[in-house]
Amino acid sequence: MYAAPSIQKLLDELERLPGVGPKSAQRIAYWILNADKATALRLSEAIAEVKDQVRFCSRCFNYAEDELCEICRSAKRDERTICVVSEPRDIPPIERTAVYDGVYHVLGGALSPMEGIGPDDLRIVELMKRLSSGEVTEVVLATNPNVEGETTAAYLARLIKPLGIRVTRPASGLPVGGDLEFADEVTLGRAIETRREV
Amino acid sequence: MYAAPSIQKLLDELERLPGVGPKSAQRIAYWILNADKATALRLSEAIAEVKDQVRFCSRCFNYAEDELCEICRSAKRDERTICVVSEPRDIPPIERTAVYDGVYHVLGGALSPMEGIGPDDLRIVELMKRLSSGEVTEVVLATNPNVEGETTAAYLARLIKPLGIRVTRPASGLPVGGDLEFADEVTLGRAIETRREV
Repeated sequence: MYAAPSIQKLLDELERLPGVGPKSAQRIAYWILNADKATALRLSEAIAEVKDQVRFCSRCFNYAEDELCEICRSAKRDERTICVVSEPRDIPPIERTAVYDGVYHVLGGALSPMEGIGPDDLRIVELMKRLSSGEVTEVVLATNPNVEGETTAAYLARLIKPLGIRVTRPASGLPVGGDLEFADEVTLGRAIETRREV
Repeated sequence: MYAAPSIQKLLDELERLPGVGPKSAQRIAYWILNADKATALRLSEAIAEVKDQVRFCSRCFNYAEDELCEICRSAKRDERTICVVSEPRDIPPIERTAVYDGVYHVLGGALSPMEGIGPDDLRIVELMKRLSSGEVTEVVLATNPNVEGETTAAYLARLIKPLGIRVTRPASGLPVGGDLEFADEVTLGRAIETRREV
């Protein structure tokens, strides 16, 4: 035992974080020890604050500080298009593309018979309720391009299409800026199958 | 702007941490948002606590919660050997080897004319004072094996040797378990120069 108890406790807590192993935990802990007190306390308070102030948006289930999230509250968003994602963390990457101006719906997971996650465990009833208003013209199924995400998208497409709403899914294909040589065969195969006229 | 203000604030604070870029900050922030409140608050409190309770050991300048650090307080440590390191963060890796049972002295940096760090900026006077008691028989100069560390070790060796105290430095050589093929030439060169009879 070489670390003071409070340092050891900090190391233990830091190691729980995703992507933080014993070495990064130590690097971060010593950075905190070395930082001025105000900087360290800003981090400490930001963590407590987020747990205190953040809840789920009552409409789309994104993280929000009020009844509705920033996106649902915005007058600039097109409410006729709903992008369905698995988790709140999937929203920032889509927002950063700056090509989507609709709203979202967070399912809270993806269908997975292996893990015992069925339709009732996702916010599908809430989605169907939003669609029943008749104002929505397109649903973009942006669940992950893996087995669970594809299954969920297929399931939702079957539910939504009969309502006469356009159902889409982001294209699979080669990453922009990537090398064809390093693309996996499934991605490359799908990119060739869905090739477009230039 | 897609994140709630408190989430954005947390992201900003997380990105300051060493080795944490925008993507890891986001991964950690969403982990915190998803974690139960008690877990998140334990991390928040551990950060605040460490800043509140940790100070420098009055003898060796390691981090400590009391007047003396755990190592200086221990009756099991051999006070006749002092291992000199640059920073408190250099102590845990040495402790983990379990081959050293002496005490430490933290310099608080290394000599660096480039950055304007001279002998007066390090805790050298405090080290010489500890050596003046006459009880210390060996000083291990465990500053980093880089230019600043080597300079600091050479400077301290010149100061300490005249006192009749044994001055040593951890061996340079090939990392155990490493491949000879991937060793850099300086390390390999030094390992060959200091080769030993088997």
